[in-house]
Amino acid sequence: MNGIDLYSLMTKLFPINRSLTGQGVRETLDILCNHVNLRRHNVLSGSKHFDWTVPKEWKVKSAYISDMSGNKIIDFQDNNLHLVGYSKSKKGDISKEELFEHLFYLEDLPTAIPYITSYYSDNWGFCISYNQYKELKDDFYYVKIDTEHFNGKMDYADYIIEGDSKEEIIFSTYICHPSMASNELSGPVVTIGLIKYLENLPRRRYTYRFVFVPETIGSIVYINQNYNHLKNNTIAGFIVTCVGDDGDYSLVESPYGQTLADRAVKAVLKKYNKYSKIYSFLERGSDERQYCFPNIDLPFVAVTRTKFYEYPEYHTSLDNLNYTSPKALENSLNYLVDIVALMELNEFYLASTFCEPQLGKRGLYPLISTKESNELVKNMMNVLAYCDGNNDVISIINKLFLEPNIVIDIIKTLKSNNLIKKI
Amino acid sequence: MNGIDLYSLMTKLFPINRSLTGQGVRETLDILCNHVNLRRHNVLSGSKHFDWTVPKEWKVKSAYISDMSGNKIIDFQDNNLHLVGYSKSKKGDISKEELFEHLFYLEDLPTAIPYITSYYSDNWGFCISYNQYKELKDDFYYVKIDTEHFNGKMDYADYIIEGDSKEEIIFSTYICHPSMASNELSGPVVTIGLIKYLENLPRRRYTYRFVFVPETIGSIVYINQNYNHLKNNTIAGFIVTCVGDDGDYSLVESPYGQTLADRAVKAVLKKYNKYSKIYSFLERGSDERQYCFPNIDLPFVAVTRTKFYEYPEYHTSLDNLNYTSPKALENSLNYLVDIVALMELNEFYLASTFCEPQLGKRGLYPLISTKESNELVKNMMNVLAYCDGNNDVISIINKLFLEPNIVIDIIKTLKSNNLIKKI
Amino acid sequence: MNGIDLYSLMTKLFPINRSLTGQGVRETLDILCNHVNLRRHNVLSGSKHFDWTVPKEWKVKSAYISDMSGNKIIDFQDNNLHLVGYSKSKKGDISKEELFEHLFYLEDLPTAIPYITSYYSDNWGFCISYNQYKELKDDFYYVKIDTEHFNGKMDYADYIIEGDSKEEIIFSTYICHPSMASNELSGPVVTIGLIKYLENLPRRRYTYRFVFVPETIGSIVYINQNYNHLKNNTIAGFIVTCVGDDGDYSLVESPYGQTLADRAVKAVLKKYNKYSKIYSFLERGSDERQYCFPNIDLPFVAVTRTKFYEYPEYHTSLDNLNYTSPKALENSLNYLVDIVALMELNEFYLASTFCEPQLGKRGLYPLISTKESNELVKNMMNVLAYCDGNNDVISIINKLFLEPNIVIDIIKTLKSNNLIKKI
Repeated sequence: MNGIDLYSLMTKLFPINRSLTGQGVRETLDILCNHVNLRRHNVLSGSKHFDWTVPKEWKVKSAYISDMSGNKIIDFQDNNLHLVGYSKSKKGDISKEELFEHLFYLEDLPTAIPYITSYYSDNWGFCISYNQYKELKDDFYYVKIDTEHFNGKMDYADYIIEGDSKEEIIFSTYICHPSMASNELSGPVVTIGLIKYLENLPRRRYTYRFVFVPETIGSIVYINQNYNHLKNNTIAGFIVTCVGDDGDYSLVESPYGQTLADRAVKAVLKKYNKYSKIYSFLERGSDERQYCFPNIDLPFVAVTRTKFYEYPEYHTSLDNLNYTSPKALENSLNYLVDIVALMELNEFYLASTFCEPQLGKRGLYPLISTKESNELVKNMMNVLAYCDGNNDVISIINKLFLEPNIVIDIIKTLKSNNLIKKI
Repeated sequence: MNGIDLYSLMTKLFPINRSLTGQGVRETLDILCNHVNLRRHNVLSGSKHFDWTVPKEWKVKSAYISDMSGNKIIDFQDNNLHLVGYSKSKKGDISKEELFEHLFYLEDLPTAIPYITSYYSDNWGFCISYNQYKELKDDFYYVKIDTEHFNGKMDYADYIIEGDSKEEIIFSTYICHPSMASNELSGPVVTIGLIKYLENLPRRRYTYRFVFVPETIGSIVYINQNYNHLKNNTIAGFIVTCVGDDGDYSLVESPYGQTLADRAVKAVLKKYNKYSKIYSFLERGSDERQYCFPNIDLPFVAVTRTKFYEYPEYHTSLDNLNYTSPKALENSLNYLVDIVALMELNEFYLASTFCEPQLGKRGLYPLISTKESNELVKNMMNVLAYCDGNNDVISIINKLFLEPNIVIDIIKTLKSNNLIKKI
Repeated sequence: MNGIDLYSLMTKLFPINRSLTGQGVRETLDILCNHVNLRRHNVLSGSKHFDWTVPKEWKVKSAYISDMSGNKIIDFQDNNLHLVGYSKSKKGDISKEELFEHLFYLEDLPTAIPYITSYYSDNWGFCISYNQYKELKDDFYYVKIDTEHFNGKMDYADYIIEGDSKEEIIFSTYICHPSMASNELSGPVVTIGLIKYLENLPRRRYTYRFVFVPETIGSIVYINQNYNHLKNNTIAGFIVTCVGDDGDYSLVESPYGQTLADRAVKAVLKKYNKYSKIYSFLERGSDERQYCFPNIDLPFVAVTRTKFYEYPEYHTSLDNLNYTSPKALENSLNYLVDIVALMELNEFYLASTFCEPQLGKRGLYPLISTKESNELVKNMMNVLAYCDGNNDVISIINKLFLEPNIVIDIIKTLKSNNLIKKI
């Protein structure tokens, strides 16, 4: 899938009113299943998973505010962010004062509708732009919210691509936010692209697992249902989120910052960014919170471009289809492909020769010495110098401060010339 | 004891002419014993302890200089710093030139009388301010020093407060300087305050040992007398000195900077100072020299505010009762109390839940989200994330760059909600 | 040997046309043997050593270019850098255009003749200054290169000075460049000086091995011939190169930067440079490439002043006898002597006393306290504090940020006063 394909998939997913549970998640998975035959699962509202209980489904029939002239001035039909997530029903005339207690807006971002939810308290409310808020002059309004909360299901899905080894690399992303693009739809969309890419490879060293869940409660359910398998097989995990914009790539480290996932992302960041943008685990915020939690302790990081919390459009109506682009999505897919490719070929190598090899007789030494050819020879000898059995390829990339492709190409050349052997 | 109490105790101790041995130390201990029933000990002049020999007692009957008109112009009665410590007797008229060879003053600090001792060479001398020195115009002076050196005792004291464990935390301070406030009286005075505080606690986890000794020779004697006990039981030790002023708190690290004492002080420094002021062991200067010496190797640090050597008033008459204050002493006591409190509750915890707990159902998630409440939740989840059995509370504080009380309060909340358990 | 002796030796070696093999190397070793009775070795052209084959000898009978008037305008007799190393024979009139394809010059350094070799391709060429190049106006030239390539030998040498221990410290330097001073002759010349110095010592703790080889192929042959011995006995190795100028001393670290050789050089650098100039192994370039190669893995560093690649005169005719000086060579010898001296006395010590020793009774405490004497006492106590059995002398020097001689003198004083004992 190229950038246009990814963007087009996002466009289909964008209008759906997703929530932790219910029809929005199901529709989202339906659309994703048009591309990849995901394994679908569900758990019942009220079922317990570790410390949590799956909430009821929430269904919005209609939600709007009319002014004294009877004009609908705010309508859930126009933008599903207008209604506070999980709002209860409400109907009747209310005073301006009472209404204002239930309105949310952002003074600093006057054209943005904020995204607000109230999953765990019994409440109702509307979200509007500050500009619209300022125009509310009537003394009374008619409010109608017609929603239902009922026992239903929480839906989620996963997908496995088997590899030569049972060792698994996991990509986990979430599907529970209404109409927002970078946080969240970029995650599932790019992950679908990654599945398509990996499935088309003739073979894979590792097994890949892809997880599409509502955030927090979804990953908790997923970990609960798959605990032993995940503990026994996972070698690296990645939360994919906020990869829809053009910003620098960034990493949220695992709790101690030293896992294969951390090291692989740090190596690949060199290719994409001038400066590495690395956040400690203290700055986390997505499902790495669950995967890395003490008794779970899976080797996960989060991969993002401009990270949640770090851009003003985050969790507002401005994180929309204009905030992202086909090109940005395609680049993000390439980024994930590079991370995977690096892990696939990551090995410990040992030089085959005693002392440096004679490059000339293998055609590896430039006949005409240029700045570029000298640099290549220098890099090749530096890679070789650390092919001492103690460093994997990722470690060599990070030690040499080189772009991964340079080292990968050198490793290929060295292998094909029998100058290194895998150990 | 509050700041006024501590300052009042210091006022009583201030005039005494202390030296390594003799009546001054005994009087000092007498006064301290009015507050705490210290265990008193002594060793004889001439007795050997490791590489050292306890010096004779030194008694000053009188010491003054008169000018040609017979006026006493410098008198030990006015300020015991006027006489070089351990001076021998001297009596007679001497020329200005001869006198000047025995006068000490500080040109850079013209109102200060310096503190000079000559414990290990047979000498006499006076210390005066540079301003007074400049006014010495007479050609001849009458000098009278009537002192005695005789075999007596070196006095010291200690105090034990037993706790649930035999593991000991030691506070050691010194009592051998004449009239100076921050270096030295702040040390014993605040330590007395700490004893009173700890004794009033209903129970203590650790046993506490308090040591009041003349500097260097005193700690050497003390270590010699208690070597096996100290080696077998000490888990952390603190030299308390220079805690009388309003300056930033500072730490002199142990030789390798990684002991419980180092870590605890670093954690507490965050609360008191904007910037941590940490000196390496290379900058030490008090009894940590003995406690940390190779074959002794006890886990000691020194806790100070403005450290010895680092303030111009150090070792002069300007380090007097005006240099300190009730408030400064009270703050310093609070600082030590915080260090103790932190060690008392320092444990390794493991989260009880698999995946993050549901905070809302425990009332731990704010109903109204504010910047402060979000910060609290973030901190709580960060603490919990590192309650993985590998970090004690001090380590979590230092990892999260938070004030200790924030983490301590969170730990309490987590414990009372059964979200973590001690391991 | 003093600086004049070293410079005089270099002057004798300078004119010789060295190459990897052949008469130049033999003459060089002949001259070195006038000072030290080196053990001489050779291997045959065509013999294989690890991945390499020893090249043929190359003999230059004459090489020059004449202009249309018959004047020799470029002549190998004037400067052996004029002829591209290992050039094949060539004779005849050629056009300006053809000639220019075989001319090498440096536009940025218009008075310098570059040093170019073509060991592994069948080629011919001349090197000239850019200034001379600009004056070549004739349309045709007569070129005569009369050289021979024939099966002969590659010569090299080594030298052993036995010590109390079979553990060896190695100094390796190279002898294959034509007329250039800092890179390369400073290396063998200063190494000869080091041999003379070490041989005159009454005894040595370690055995010393000195290696004089053509660069790369020579060290490869040497390692091949001595592999087991080197692996079993080497505790530290040093490549000596580029030590002819007045520049700051620098270190090229071993692959992981932690060997005895690394630590010793870092300690000694403090004495010679204001700022330590330390290059990672990624910036290497001489025979440390072979000694440190994965399957060889000997603990080598390179010691240089202004490092190869780092000065514009490098590999040109400007790296000549004027670029170096007797004083620079003598200083470099002293530098190596200091490194050796430090390793010779490097031990782990443990303090003999419990608690600090009483310095006064040993005359180690200044009667008159000055800034210098206070500093000395402070340093002495700091050294003693880390004589805890865990740090060797080099580690103490590096930990205390002191010049090595200060620590060495203190160690001597402490030993002679029985305050520390070797462990």
